[in-house]
Amino acid sequence: MTLKFAVLGAGRIGQVHARAIASVPGAALVAIAEPNDKAAEAARAAFGCEIRSIDACAAADDIDAVVICTPTNTHADLIEQFVRAGKKVFCEKPVDLDVARVRQALDVVKAEGGTLMVGFQRRFDPDFMALKAAIDEGRIGAVEMITLTSRDPAPPPYDYIKVSGGIFRDMTIHDFDVARWLLGEEVTTVQAAASVLTDPEIGKLGDYDSTNVILTTASGKQCTITNTRRASYGYDQRIEVHGSTGSVSAENHREANIEIANAQGYLRPPLLNFFMSRYVTAYANEIAAFVAAVADGTTPPTTGEDGLKALELAMAALESVKTGRTVELT
Amino acid sequence: MTLKFAVLGAGRIGQVHARAIASVPGAALVAIAEPNDKAAEAARAAFGCEIRSIDACAAADDIDAVVICTPTNTHADLIEQFVRAGKKVFCEKPVDLDVARVRQALDVVKAEGGTLMVGFQRRFDPDFMALKAAIDEGRIGAVEMITLTSRDPAPPPYDYIKVSGGIFRDMTIHDFDVARWLLGEEVTTVQAAASVLTDPEIGKLGDYDSTNVILTTASGKQCTITNTRRASYGYDQRIEVHGSTGSVSAENHREANIEIANAQGYLRPPLLNFFMSRYVTAYANEIAAFVAAVADGTTPPTTGEDGLKALELAMAALESVKTGRTVELT
Amino acid sequence: MTLKFAVLGAGRIGQVHARAIASVPGAALVAIAEPNDKAAEAARAAFGCEIRSIDACAAADDIDAVVICTPTNTHADLIEQFVRAGKKVFCEKPVDLDVARVRQALDVVKAEGGTLMVGFQRRFDPDFMALKAAIDEGRIGAVEMITLTSRDPAPPPYDYIKVSGGIFRDMTIHDFDVARWLLGEEVTTVQAAASVLTDPEIGKLGDYDSTNVILTTASGKQCTITNTRRASYGYDQRIEVHGSTGSVSAENHREANIEIANAQGYLRPPLLNFFMSRYVTAYANEIAAFVAAVADGTTPPTTGEDGLKALELAMAALESVKTGRTVELT
Amino acid sequence: MTLKFAVLGAGRIGQVHARAIASVPGAALVAIAEPNDKAAEAARAAFGCEIRSIDACAAADDIDAVVICTPTNTHADLIEQFVRAGKKVFCEKPVDLDVARVRQALDVVKAEGGTLMVGFQRRFDPDFMALKAAIDEGRIGAVEMITLTSRDPAPPPYDYIKVSGGIFRDMTIHDFDVARWLLGEEVTTVQAAASVLTDPEIGKLGDYDSTNVILTTASGKQCTITNTRRASYGYDQRIEVHGSTGSVSAENHREANIEIANAQGYLRPPLLNFFMSRYVTAYANEIAAFVAAVADGTTPPTTGEDGLKALELAMAALESVKTGRTVELT
Repeated sequence: MTLKFAVLGAGRIGQVHARAIASVPGAALVAIAEPNDKAAEAARAAFGCEIRSIDACAAADDIDAVVICTPTNTHADLIEQFVRAGKKVFCEKPVDLDVARVRQALDVVKAEGGTLMVGFQRRFDPDFMALKAAIDEGRIGAVEMITLTSRDPAPPPYDYIKVSGGIFRDMTIHDFDVARWLLGEEVTTVQAAASVLTDPEIGKLGDYDSTNVILTTASGKQCTITNTRRASYGYDQRIEVHGSTGSVSAENHREANIEIANAQGYLRPPLLNFFMSRYVTAYANEIAAFVAAVADGTTPPTTGEDGLKALELAMAALESVKTGRTVELT
Repeated sequence: MTLKFAVLGAGRIGQVHARAIASVPGAALVAIAEPNDKAAEAARAAFGCEIRSIDACAAADDIDAVVICTPTNTHADLIEQFVRAGKKVFCEKPVDLDVARVRQALDVVKAEGGTLMVGFQRRFDPDFMALKAAIDEGRIGAVEMITLTSRDPAPPPYDYIKVSGGIFRDMTIHDFDVARWLLGEEVTTVQAAASVLTDPEIGKLGDYDSTNVILTTASGKQCTITNTRRASYGYDQRIEVHGSTGSVSAENHREANIEIANAQGYLRPPLLNFFMSRYVTAYANEIAAFVAAVADGTTPPTTGEDGLKALELAMAALESVKTGRTVELT
Repeated sequence: MTLKFAVLGAGRIGQVHARAIASVPGAALVAIAEPNDKAAEAARAAFGCEIRSIDACAAADDIDAVVICTPTNTHADLIEQFVRAGKKVFCEKPVDLDVARVRQALDVVKAEGGTLMVGFQRRFDPDFMALKAAIDEGRIGAVEMITLTSRDPAPPPYDYIKVSGGIFRDMTIHDFDVARWLLGEEVTTVQAAASVLTDPEIGKLGDYDSTNVILTTASGKQCTITNTRRASYGYDQRIEVHGSTGSVSAENHREANIEIANAQGYLRPPLLNFFMSRYVTAYANEIAAFVAAVADGTTPPTTGEDGLKALELAMAALESVKTGRTVELT
Repeated sequence: MTLKFAVLGAGRIGQVHARAIASVPGAALVAIAEPNDKAAEAARAAFGCEIRSIDACAAADDIDAVVICTPTNTHADLIEQFVRAGKKVFCEKPVDLDVARVRQALDVVKAEGGTLMVGFQRRFDPDFMALKAAIDEGRIGAVEMITLTSRDPAPPPYDYIKVSGGIFRDMTIHDFDVARWLLGEEVTTVQAAASVLTDPEIGKLGDYDSTNVILTTASGKQCTITNTRRASYGYDQRIEVHGSTGSVSAENHREANIEIANAQGYLRPPLLNFFMSRYVTAYANEIAAFVAAVADGTTPPTTGEDGLKALELAMAALESVKTGRTVELT
């Protein structure tokens, strides 16, 4: 039983997912939908699949599932279209930048009895999975305090920033999801600070590039998230979970596991510099998890609801920065 | 030229300072003032010094300087008494739990033209000094985001908690001072969350055992502080400073630099479990810095003003927890 | 231009190479030759290739190259057969356990103008390649002293040990090749010690399980190799190269990059436990290098001569153990 | 009960021991014997002790013990003189460069019922003690294979090399002692290679600067020692012990426990650059162990016999280099 896929959008992340589908047993890539002819042709050559329109994918009998990798403002519409067409849907984060629109789309998924998985790939990183397993096995006791460090090597282009929804909805949203996953209970209050430190232009676009967030749960567990848009040493992705009887942390990935010693000291290479190389295994595991959930008829591990909750935390963080208040979630 | 010292109080921290004085060239321990006869006798035996009353120390011609290690509620009075007696004063943190009382004492020091150093020993830790030097040498560019991790192995006794002034004034105060030292500009806003996670009894005493704080400066630099009163793996003391062109971090100290590998994995020993063993060199360096400042007639590196500022941050953090607001410092 | 492959032998290492061929652009797996019907069928199912006899592969027009993964005692014959049939040959190490037989086979390759690459996959490991690049870039100055640590998690079955040629020809041979690769000049003397420490049965089979070797070059560079057949903590594979102005080392690979801290200390997971998972990327890189050499008409990076030289070092090490002499190579 | 010491020789190592004596409870420094007036005066000023002649020290009633830090060629004579004078003797390594002379001196010690401790300070390093304790607690099972890495930052002056007895007797001798301590059984065979790689002048003086040694015991345990006289990154001192159920290693000491990350990578400071700073605690522990042995009337932990055995291994290593044979010890 092979799950036959169409990938909507052949941009950077679309290619990642196409490659992941090709590598996952039980999954096959049938078609890619991509309006840019050159990109479409490149994808056809690279993946040996057909090029079809989005509507043709929705109508096709030989397609069971779609991976939505189009621009954010089309996600909700496409989720609704493909769920109504009876396809299993995997959608890149976020569902939408607007909480109400997300809720609307989720209502359609529910009404149709559809399957929707939202792409929070970090939950599928082998190291983070090992960290989560250590927690679940009781090796650190009760989770109490979490520290998430997430730094991009460099900010995205201004044009992207303009439509990104801002740092909280674009970047921190991954950390909000990881926080929820690891805290094991819902966040009840959000405090956030945000600054423009790397490039004043980002401030002119109404966004921030440096932020710290504190999340608290009803039982008093706390999680801090530190984000910056610039890290000279690479893509910095760390998790530390402090529990009642121990602590567990996941370390960064480097370009190579070597060390050079000389009169200046002991030098290890910088970190992997790109989210796609850092999370290449996570992206493959994520598609495999989607395929498995469809095969087993179970709820995917990262649902539309997870996408909504992370977005609500992003909105609360922004509100905290704007109002100088601790924002309570209901 | 030897600076002749009296140590007031022969408790745990008094002994640390007495030992530091004995190890610092240019310093000599003349007397200890200690009301408990047994403790006084033990100190006399250990350090080969005299036992005198506090007033006798203040009046003595053969004493140039005092180290105040008595209970917190006596600090401000003793600072005033000894400054008026013309002695150089080193006072353990905090000057007082009350901001107004601290200001009053500092006014006396100023009026008398006295010398007051407040004991923030972390600034004198060799690793933290190396970290600060790396910043000052421009090796990470402009400081932008700081992460301070500070966890005690176990909470202090309830009796101590009752008079400690609470976690922010007792424990976080060290981190507030380190933050100010490393940020290089004054903090303008404070956000804090605090919970009781390790022992409900601490909550009944009106205190917290787990806290996260975000500090922001006028230019938007940010610092997070994470504190807990319980860490199974020892006394966790880490600093990470992220700058515009790099990052610098200081690591923990272990019981031994060995690693044991077997089928379970690779095991390094827990951390040093006690602030006195962790900071033994820092305490000696701190006294040496005091001696040097007196000898050179310069302002000590950690002043009464530093003590006041750290206390103000502690009060602001508590206010943020209580009010759910970002507290602005004027 | 795609290089069309047959893999001879569908055992463990044959499957590794079949998978590598499938993953390398410019390579295609056409057929597998495997006498065991069940294994042959499994390979056909897994790789979607044909099953053919060895002779059919040699005669086939649609096969350009072979990967020889059959038992060691067939390697030399197959090299000769396939070189004579005009195929490009990749042969798993060793070419043969007997130096004279290896020379004979290499003579045939030379006479036929054939292409032979011998499978020393460690040269293609990304970390070891980064280490070699650091040396070649002059980052440690002149190579002076090398330390190779190579420990198997557990000894192979007795039946394998019986036909393996002994620890030096079976296990150390990889280190001999790495030593030659990194020393940059030929070894002139060999000293070795060998013991049976893990299992007396290994001694009864005439073999050893624990050995140290010192290699020296004409200019006095030295390399030590330490091998054991049992390491409770996994597959231990480390290189350290000490040069005139610095040192470079490559670290082990773990099951996951996490660390758990508790009262016992800080625990990282054991090492990857199997040479195939440890060197999975190296095996793919190795086939890619073979494909590239064929495409470019260049000599493969690990030649039959390299296989011969490593075997000569293995024989010299054994002689040193047996005679208690430093063995000179001519 | 305080053990009253004279230190013979106020050179570099004499000062280290004088300082160690000052820091050890139960020990007091009474006198230093030093023919150089300037050095003698400096020692008097630094340690507040008397200056006496060697003979005066031997004759003095107020001296219980001596630490011999004079040139090597005087050690044996002084051991005999002071043992005959009834003093407890601590002698810096080596007792003598000549095995027969060492035996003679040990005979005198034995005949007089004297106490002699030889200065192998590495056994008293806290990390190496923790490593040894891990072995003794059975945490790695039976010791099987040991790797000792010992590299000096830079070679000593030519004048020192001339009288040093060569690298094996001067430098490797420490590793021979550590090997014996950790192997837990006597070495039966020695193989060694030695080269001149850092400075041809060292070769002209008849010495080597780079060496590897393999030691084997009767039961087949093996130990390799790698030594070089030049390491750009500092004083490299590592131990790794591989056992039947695990492995334990001791890591180097750095100038500071910080790490700087930037576009070049992650840089930790070089190693401590000097044996005196690296082993400062070991030197103090060593004197404390001597004081304790005298107080308890027990044999010191590093005896004259240990000095003799290490010297015999050094001579065997040299013989192996010269003859190209595995040297057997009887």
